[in-house]
Amino acid sequence: MAQSGGPTAVINASVAGVVNEALNYECIEEIYGGLNGVLGILNEDLIDLANESQQAIRGLQYTPGAALGTCRYKLKKDSDFERVLKVFEAHNIRYFFYAGGNDSQDTANKISKLAQEKGYELRVIGIPKTIDNDLVATDHCPGYGSVIKHISTLVREMACDHESMGQGDMVSILEVMGRNAGWIAAGASLAKRRDKPNDPPHLIYLPEVAFNPEKFKVDVQRVLSKERYCMIVVGEGLIDVEGNYVHASSGATDAFGHNQLGGAGDYLRELVETTLGVKARTAKFGISQRSAATHVSKTDSDEAVMAGQAAVKAAISGVTDKMVTLIRSEADHYVCETGLTDLEEVANGVKSIPTDWINEDGTSMSFQFVKYASPLIQGEVSVPYDNGLPTFASLSKTRIFRLLDAYQPE
Amino acid sequence: MAQSGGPTAVINASVAGVVNEALNYECIEEIYGGLNGVLGILNEDLIDLANESQQAIRGLQYTPGAALGTCRYKLKKDSDFERVLKVFEAHNIRYFFYAGGNDSQDTANKISKLAQEKGYELRVIGIPKTIDNDLVATDHCPGYGSVIKHISTLVREMACDHESMGQGDMVSILEVMGRNAGWIAAGASLAKRRDKPNDPPHLIYLPEVAFNPEKFKVDVQRVLSKERYCMIVVGEGLIDVEGNYVHASSGATDAFGHNQLGGAGDYLRELVETTLGVKARTAKFGISQRSAATHVSKTDSDEAVMAGQAAVKAAISGVTDKMVTLIRSEADHYVCETGLTDLEEVANGVKSIPTDWINEDGTSMSFQFVKYASPLIQGEVSVPYDNGLPTFASLSKTRIFRLLDAYQPE
Repeated sequence: MAQSGGPTAVINASVAGVVNEALNYECIEEIYGGLNGVLGILNEDLIDLANESQQAIRGLQYTPGAALGTCRYKLKKDSDFERVLKVFEAHNIRYFFYAGGNDSQDTANKISKLAQEKGYELRVIGIPKTIDNDLVATDHCPGYGSVIKHISTLVREMACDHESMGQGDMVSILEVMGRNAGWIAAGASLAKRRDKPNDPPHLIYLPEVAFNPEKFKVDVQRVLSKERYCMIVVGEGLIDVEGNYVHASSGATDAFGHNQLGGAGDYLRELVETTLGVKARTAKFGISQRSAATHVSKTDSDEAVMAGQAAVKAAISGVTDKMVTLIRSEADHYVCETGLTDLEEVANGVKSIPTDWINEDGTSMSFQFVKYASPLIQGEVSVPYDNGLPTFASLSKTRIFRLLDAYQPE
Repeated sequence: MAQSGGPTAVINASVAGVVNEALNYECIEEIYGGLNGVLGILNEDLIDLANESQQAIRGLQYTPGAALGTCRYKLKKDSDFERVLKVFEAHNIRYFFYAGGNDSQDTANKISKLAQEKGYELRVIGIPKTIDNDLVATDHCPGYGSVIKHISTLVREMACDHESMGQGDMVSILEVMGRNAGWIAAGASLAKRRDKPNDPPHLIYLPEVAFNPEKFKVDVQRVLSKERYCMIVVGEGLIDVEGNYVHASSGATDAFGHNQLGGAGDYLRELVETTLGVKARTAKFGISQRSAATHVSKTDSDEAVMAGQAAVKAAISGVTDKMVTLIRSEADHYVCETGLTDLEEVANGVKSIPTDWINEDGTSMSFQFVKYASPLIQGEVSVPYDNGLPTFASLSKTRIFRLLDAYQPE
């Protein structure tokens, strides 16, 4: 089992699911974790997951980050792939479970294909993981429900604050993650109470809708003519009509050629202050969005566990080259089951928000979106506190003795 | 009862304390709330707090923002002060409780002095409130414990994420509130576990310590030579050796003369990336810091209620022109009692962090600080959830019939 890409608040829940399920089968003699994704496999950095305490494995269900470590390393050379197989062979590893986004599923697929070519019996099952919710062939991705529960909670809390400020005309801008798709920004719309369409967030700007500064000005003015403040949620990947990321003008370049200063949030603040003469404030939650353990969705956490269990069940039953998917049943209330899809399909696709889930105004989400997203944030997970702060699990990481010579990945 | 200045996560708990305590005394016939601080009193915008449901008043204990509304309006003219007395007189208001920071205590003091001059019998008691923790004569301020519990929680959560990233040398910068004092940034040090001095945050930069870019570079290099990442917490009010706020160079001015782009967090990021060539990320939590209801400290919330109750008790017993203070008893474990201090003393003072609570390295807090701050974050407050999100109380705000002509404050 290994983890890859950016962590989510529930990626460790999938590890717990894999470990608990794997213990049920006699044919699985050892359960190893690869440290820092494929990097750890290349380096033969393996730990004994079966040796971890039950408390630690249970604690993974509320521990953010990737407990096994993660990486953004992409296997490139043939020798990298061959090394992975060599490590698997040395330790008689016959099942490989990889939690990650589409790049990781691509890696898993290539490893599996090489094993088949070489006649090494290996079953490879991917486990979906991304706060971005952009994997194809699955109704949604473990990690997404928790990040939008977190953002919506912040919107609700901040709304109480903004509402209480006496002298009106304040614009509040929240920049959230989502470089290529607006799923996270869209999820903020869940903060609106039932039958309260005028609740914040008043305006949502998504990467899916090309940004028009003139329309933006009119949008903000319309909100401020009716409300005491205007709360805006913007995805960091906002693009202009030419398809370029927007950025604050004064952040163009500094003496060293850096141009990252001032992302989408700062850009919108500048527009508000210069074209409308209204005070604006920004918040940019950064990494805290994907590590918000104290705002995890129980539904999301449970489904992450279930995805891990389903991966093991599939492998045991002889399946390989698949990723576990989440399937929403057609029942009256929300029921989620698992399915399987080809790794190859996931590796090459990106799922965008359906166009008709964005209202015609381009700044709010339709009823269909809310119906889709609302079940994903239901339920809370209790995190243990000690001395006033949450305490998280950490693994003891008993190392598996190395059997091969060192390998130097590039 | 009225609220003033920036809200905190527990300012409403003090309203609950005042209302519950006031109901105990027959001499108090009505309990009015002034909407949006002194502005509401000038405008005769009064609501009937005794008429609110018990559920709503109880709900105030976990509702962020200022439920009565707040303002940053400062009474200036003599006519403003006279108007306040006129409104009090018209409604036979004989007790005035004002929750706020030092500006608000100054306002309360001036109102009281004018009443005495005019021979209008009025008792005025201030209730401390500020996340900034900078009021003198009180051991600490309601609102502070919750904001540092929140920041420390985020540091713990983000640490799990950063720790799991495989390819090291990452700098993570968290910009937190605190324009004039570093109490909030200092509080992040509570995230370190017992006997784990190398836990994040690795470096804390406070407005109290003039910023030296050369030392900063050495500080960060030292951390990165030992740890996989370097987490920095910086107060937004960081100043350079000349006493000016630091800001990112490319945020100097834009075409419209604005120079707010790029605060202390962006400035540090620029320094890291340009002088060390290391990737840095920033997070800036903005208003969410003071509205983080789901991370409220039970100790803080209880003390905010107690401060409200103590204000009423003092007024009933004949005291006036005082602010309630929190006093830490000399007991073995933390015990907090209330006291009283002159409004005038609070109005004119600002409390800085004692110099010897900052370690000689200038970037970490001493044992004394931890001993001081740790009791303030103990305990959690349970917030009710509905449909996956916290639900907060809102007041029905039954208006008190106006008895005077309209007044136009400037």
